[in-house]
Amino acid sequence: MRLNFEYLAENIKHLSDQAIKQTLNEIPLADLIEMWANLAEEDVVRVFLQLDLSDKVDLINSLSISQQEFIIQQLSTAHIKRLLEEMEPDDITDFMQAVSPEVKDAVWKSLSDEAKKETQFLLRFDEDDAAGLMTPRYLAIQSSLTVDQALRWVRRNVHDVETIYYIYVVDQLKRLQGVLSLRDILSGRDEDKIEEIMIKNMITVREDTDQEDVAKILETYDLLALPVVDGYRRLLGIITFDDVIDVIREEQTEDIYKMGAMGGSVVPYLESSVWDLVKKRIPWLTILLITATFTANVIDLFQNVYAQAAFLVPFMQLITGTGGNSGTQSSTLMIRGLATGELEFKDIGRVLLKEIMVGVLIGIVMGCLTIVRVMVFDLGLAFDEVMIRGVAIGLAMSFVVVVATLIGALAPLLIKRLGFDPTVAAGPLMATVIDVCGLTIYFQTVRIILKL
Amino acid sequence: MRLNFEYLAENIKHLSDQAIKQTLNEIPLADLIEMWANLAEEDVVRVFLQLDLSDKVDLINSLSISQQEFIIQQLSTAHIKRLLEEMEPDDITDFMQAVSPEVKDAVWKSLSDEAKKETQFLLRFDEDDAAGLMTPRYLAIQSSLTVDQALRWVRRNVHDVETIYYIYVVDQLKRLQGVLSLRDILSGRDEDKIEEIMIKNMITVREDTDQEDVAKILETYDLLALPVVDGYRRLLGIITFDDVIDVIREEQTEDIYKMGAMGGSVVPYLESSVWDLVKKRIPWLTILLITATFTANVIDLFQNVYAQAAFLVPFMQLITGTGGNSGTQSSTLMIRGLATGELEFKDIGRVLLKEIMVGVLIGIVMGCLTIVRVMVFDLGLAFDEVMIRGVAIGLAMSFVVVVATLIGALAPLLIKRLGFDPTVAAGPLMATVIDVCGLTIYFQTVRIILKL
Repeated sequence: MRLNFEYLAENIKHLSDQAIKQTLNEIPLADLIEMWANLAEEDVVRVFLQLDLSDKVDLINSLSISQQEFIIQQLSTAHIKRLLEEMEPDDITDFMQAVSPEVKDAVWKSLSDEAKKETQFLLRFDEDDAAGLMTPRYLAIQSSLTVDQALRWVRRNVHDVETIYYIYVVDQLKRLQGVLSLRDILSGRDEDKIEEIMIKNMITVREDTDQEDVAKILETYDLLALPVVDGYRRLLGIITFDDVIDVIREEQTEDIYKMGAMGGSVVPYLESSVWDLVKKRIPWLTILLITATFTANVIDLFQNVYAQAAFLVPFMQLITGTGGNSGTQSSTLMIRGLATGELEFKDIGRVLLKEIMVGVLIGIVMGCLTIVRVMVFDLGLAFDEVMIRGVAIGLAMSFVVVVATLIGALAPLLIKRLGFDPTVAAGPLMATVIDVCGLTIYFQTVRIILKL
Repeated sequence: MRLNFEYLAENIKHLSDQAIKQTLNEIPLADLIEMWANLAEEDVVRVFLQLDLSDKVDLINSLSISQQEFIIQQLSTAHIKRLLEEMEPDDITDFMQAVSPEVKDAVWKSLSDEAKKETQFLLRFDEDDAAGLMTPRYLAIQSSLTVDQALRWVRRNVHDVETIYYIYVVDQLKRLQGVLSLRDILSGRDEDKIEEIMIKNMITVREDTDQEDVAKILETYDLLALPVVDGYRRLLGIITFDDVIDVIREEQTEDIYKMGAMGGSVVPYLESSVWDLVKKRIPWLTILLITATFTANVIDLFQNVYAQAAFLVPFMQLITGTGGNSGTQSSTLMIRGLATGELEFKDIGRVLLKEIMVGVLIGIVMGCLTIVRVMVFDLGLAFDEVMIRGVAIGLAMSFVVVVATLIGALAPLLIKRLGFDPTVAAGPLMATVIDVCGLTIYFQTVRIILKL
């Protein structure tokens, strides 16, 4: 499959449009999307034009905004028009929210009157809320119909909506009364009344429900779509499962960026400018540099200790590194548990108990390994001298691991309790706290044991 | 909503079954699942029994294996039987693969003959492959039917399958010929032949396709379900979108654990034993402890430098910390880009160019901040002495940030190129490499500038 794409990308100059079309038939769309960025700029539109209309739409929806813009800018108005007719209003809206004003204008002019109305309606809502994900193209019927009438009506309207698999029942004020799956209709008898077989106690989301909660609700009930209602229970639109999958991926990237100490929006790497990347990274690095100065202060406090015993210096990094890693492991487990809803603040007692036991066990193992390490390191000295150094540093290591494990476990729970995002506790910021505590424990322990 | 659950959990001893049922009606199932672990053990089954059958199934499917086991063990055989009748074969199989032998036996005995056959068939496949996700309950018809006949047939079989929204067309050897959505059937004319309107060039996956690839394919095409075929193109089963959402969540947790330096399987935290957690954490900590000894060796090499200038020691942590953070940021961007398919090894040139520029810009900023920090720190000394120390350490910081940024960017790309999982490059292991390079650069730079 890859071979075909590479063949295409390399030989495109010598290929006829027909040959491009044939090669494209051999390339799965998922692969084409993945490798789209590898096409030479001048070839992008030529390849695009050879795709089937439905593949064009799937491709456009899967590309990043700047790739979408690049293609749209080079298409004729007639072409854009045809493409937009195939696209769902929610996808058009997402696109309009992101593109440059010129492209937005071009797209706007190419929209049909109905699509304009739909897009204008959708543009009113925040894109991170439930309403930002919804499409206004759904099937809605009155409760007085029979199954047979409803089925005929579905068959007539099959082309105008995003999904025909859920049919919503509304009253004259568009207030949601119930829902039916197409399955319910098909399994009903022709003469059954819709109001008798519809589900009245259905799952809905409010227009301002957070998109992450929307995803969780759809997942829990394995639904294909969720209705979005306003404060008067009027049906505004529906959210389909494919948009929810996009949300799950997006939130995933955001969480991973936060764990890597970066904030801001999620823009594909190759499309971010150097300046975007610098802006995303500098704030956290600066905060961490400032907090790290506390570490420097702590080390400075113990200057008379390491001045007397220079062999302590090389092990500082070993102590803080292992402490940091133990803490990161604990905080990762907590952050993930909190994100999936498995853990809550009230579990703090059970978590603490478990982490103390884990910390002590790991601490003992790491302490013993450290003793071995010190003995190998200081080979030149007398055995009892090496032994006492090893025990001192190993014991300090054990203490540091226990404390770091507890900090790693508690920090996310406490941060969440205070109403902040526990993900910020991952890695860097916590590492500074662990460094400060770890070095204090280290120097105090060795000072006492080695009588410095 | 939470209030209702707390009310339930606290007052359950005084509530009648009827009252429990009423309270449950007020609690969204998603909330109930999230808080299930907070129920006292003795109340679990009592609450469970008051749920509607379909909610029971949704709840069971969403709970962790040990929670599932706990409930199943306390149910009567008749109850288990009723529950299993409502469950999909793929969910039953997942459950059977995870539970203890006793529970497995009890479940097996309660299965209907047909369900036994289906489960036995599904148990043959690896749970991380496409076949491990599929259900054998799909609609399959012959291509010679008309639209009208097909629709009648769908209506008769509405209850026996997981989805009625895709209808698969097979020949007598069960080889996949085409697919139709229910939408295609409903929009066809009654007398149209299925073979005329079916889609022949459909998307399929092989039984051994990796589950992550299955997820990507379903997402790209926004499909509700994907057919799974064997080497002879025989239809084995279908994978529905809800199972794919579970896969996306699971892979997400695995990636996050790997970034937090933990291997092994993903078991909910509260259900992992202390020993499970220790086993998950010790291997990485040990590897990192061993690699960190290189850092100690490097520091030891420069003993004569910091013995002469003890003020260098407190800044070691500042240098390696900031270097590590810069590297983590770069590697996070790369790992995420590789995971989403946006980046590939061949982009290495563009990545390198961008990261050099980002690294230099960040390096300059961090260098300047470091100079300020040194000057504040060493307030007691003469200005020109402080200045020269500040410049030396600040310059070293700039170099370290540039190098760390490059290591962070290159490591995931190279690891991926070598055929390994780039996620292992996140954080800890890379941190050691950056520590070693960073400290070498630091001591060499200050040695030259300060003529030590």
